[in-house]
Amino acid sequence: MHIPDLLDIDLAQRLQHKLDNKTKPLGSLGRLEALALQLGLILDTETPQLLQPQLVVFAADHGLAARGVSAYPSDVTWQMVENFLAGGAAVSVLARQHGLALTVVDCGVGRDFAPRDGLVIRKTAPGTADSLVGPAMSAAQCAQAIAYGRAIVEQLPGNALLVGEMGIGNTSAASLLLARLTGHSLAQCVGAGTGLDEAGMKRKRDVLQQVLDFHANAVAPLDALAAFGGLEIATMVGAVLQAAGERRVIVADGFISSAAVLVAQRLQPHVTQRCVFSHCSGERGHALMLRHLGPDPQQPAQALLDLGLRLGEGSGAALAWPLLVSACALLREMASFESAGVSGPQPAPAE
Amino acid sequence: MHIPDLLDIDLAQRLQHKLDNKTKPLGSLGRLEALALQLGLILDTETPQLLQPQLVVFAADHGLAARGVSAYPSDVTWQMVENFLAGGAAVSVLARQHGLALTVVDCGVGRDFAPRDGLVIRKTAPGTADSLVGPAMSAAQCAQAIAYGRAIVEQLPGNALLVGEMGIGNTSAASLLLARLTGHSLAQCVGAGTGLDEAGMKRKRDVLQQVLDFHANAVAPLDALAAFGGLEIATMVGAVLQAAGERRVIVADGFISSAAVLVAQRLQPHVTQRCVFSHCSGERGHALMLRHLGPDPQQPAQALLDLGLRLGEGSGAALAWPLLVSACALLREMASFESAGVSGPQPAPAE
Repeated sequence: MHIPDLLDIDLAQRLQHKLDNKTKPLGSLGRLEALALQLGLILDTETPQLLQPQLVVFAADHGLAARGVSAYPSDVTWQMVENFLAGGAAVSVLARQHGLALTVVDCGVGRDFAPRDGLVIRKTAPGTADSLVGPAMSAAQCAQAIAYGRAIVEQLPGNALLVGEMGIGNTSAASLLLARLTGHSLAQCVGAGTGLDEAGMKRKRDVLQQVLDFHANAVAPLDALAAFGGLEIATMVGAVLQAAGERRVIVADGFISSAAVLVAQRLQPHVTQRCVFSHCSGERGHALMLRHLGPDPQQPAQALLDLGLRLGEGSGAALAWPLLVSACALLREMASFESAGVSGPQPAPAE
Repeated sequence: MHIPDLLDIDLAQRLQHKLDNKTKPLGSLGRLEALALQLGLILDTETPQLLQPQLVVFAADHGLAARGVSAYPSDVTWQMVENFLAGGAAVSVLARQHGLALTVVDCGVGRDFAPRDGLVIRKTAPGTADSLVGPAMSAAQCAQAIAYGRAIVEQLPGNALLVGEMGIGNTSAASLLLARLTGHSLAQCVGAGTGLDEAGMKRKRDVLQQVLDFHANAVAPLDALAAFGGLEIATMVGAVLQAAGERRVIVADGFISSAAVLVAQRLQPHVTQRCVFSHCSGERGHALMLRHLGPDPQQPAQALLDLGLRLGEGSGAALAWPLLVSACALLREMASFESAGVSGPQPAPAE
């Protein structure tokens, strides 16, 4: 599926004209105005409205986690899936607050779950392989995970997809993808994840450098994705491509979900026109990654929030969500200078 | 009314312990955790809940506006009051979105309004006097406006006050207060307001320098407030003092409402412990002002949003509001590691 350029100059001009005639000084709603314009373009209307927003948390385990690249054991992945479903995780609380439908996808967790409401099982494998000794996924597994992601979104109602994830070890995979796909040094791309200390950080950097070197030939986006993983990232790539093709608004969360957008962008450059980056994560590497994810390659992406969040799960996407709702509501509901009988700027006084 | 130091070390420790035991890596909710702690301290509970939030827009006119310090004519003040009440302004849209009760206070608009729902008339005078030739308010008018602000808040339900304003010319008053109360040069304190061009900015700076020099003796907070105005700022000072004394959560909007907090802080230093600064305005001077408004004088205030907003009205306070609701909900509703059966960090692997 080819993702076309979104730019419709006529609609963009009509949206800008509408914003400029709202009862406020020109440009005084700051970046909310650019957001309103983007949402109008994605949804192809001067009166955008976000309907049945879907927050999907993609979960999977990572073979590389056994190398001590995370502060937490892999068991936390399945334990947190249970926590999402029981309503006790941060993203559960935030989804309730904002009326976001929450779906958890088992893309490759190392433990099987009993079926229940809110859980979708699309397990390509029970976790990735150890990328220090081979590819995290075979090409066929990678393609399967992407296809699952596409199919999941195809079944979802609404016109907005919020993307979150869970997977002990997945900041490692995201860092490797960032380094390989952008050429930045690994040192710039690796952070503390769930909270490594300095010794842990050194170990993580050493392991990841070995992995990066081992897969020196994995240069093409899908080859890099298969080499480094993870299954939840590959499934997110499919979900993002499908949502972009259907012209849904895509709300990326933090470092990991942005890595999925990065892979999707390398496959379909116009994907990022459909993406809102909810926040700049406290995880080292995310600010750098956002520089590559603007609506066109020359422009950095600007995240909405900058609160030092580094939790994942979709928590940042959920926190930023009301700003998207506001941008649409302001465009639809604010009066114009004319309709409200409010005077415009006055001429400068004579000197 | 004396505003006491809020710090309760025992409660602060219990709140921090509770946050640290939630199912998330330590500190991974970033500045939301500090916000949750602050809200717990203000509301004196480990389970804070925001009830019946009140967004109050304080409106008044400024005699100095006739000197050409604003891009818009003074008539826009009353026209925007009508727009607030008709539901067409940005703050009207955002208050509806977030279920905030909206009250507009005529503190001194140069036109009389017919009484109606949502409008409170507490008009000390039909606008301030021209501060280039005398004080904007007499000491008695200033005291009256502050008393009105106290009485308004005293009558409001709920435990949270969001403070907004409208008044053509009021960035001038706020800039003068900032310069006088902090000692920064006027050049650092003056911005484009509703959108002055370079020539307009020069005129504004020249006029404000004359006003500042004319009132060289207005050094004490209330003297400066009376000298520079405005009636809406003085009424906000009273509202902020009353809300702080009643231990309500105070959500400041942008440059003008923060100027009211600055005056209140100079009268009662612990006021800022009760204040959440919703956003850093695009108006020049606000970032500088926030440096003086931290919970203690050595600490800058950190605004939640930084979106280039410069509209006033309480629009930024309304946009940030869901983050406060989230901070409380996360503290109340998230599971702990123990209750959810989630593992904590693992020991570092042996070398």
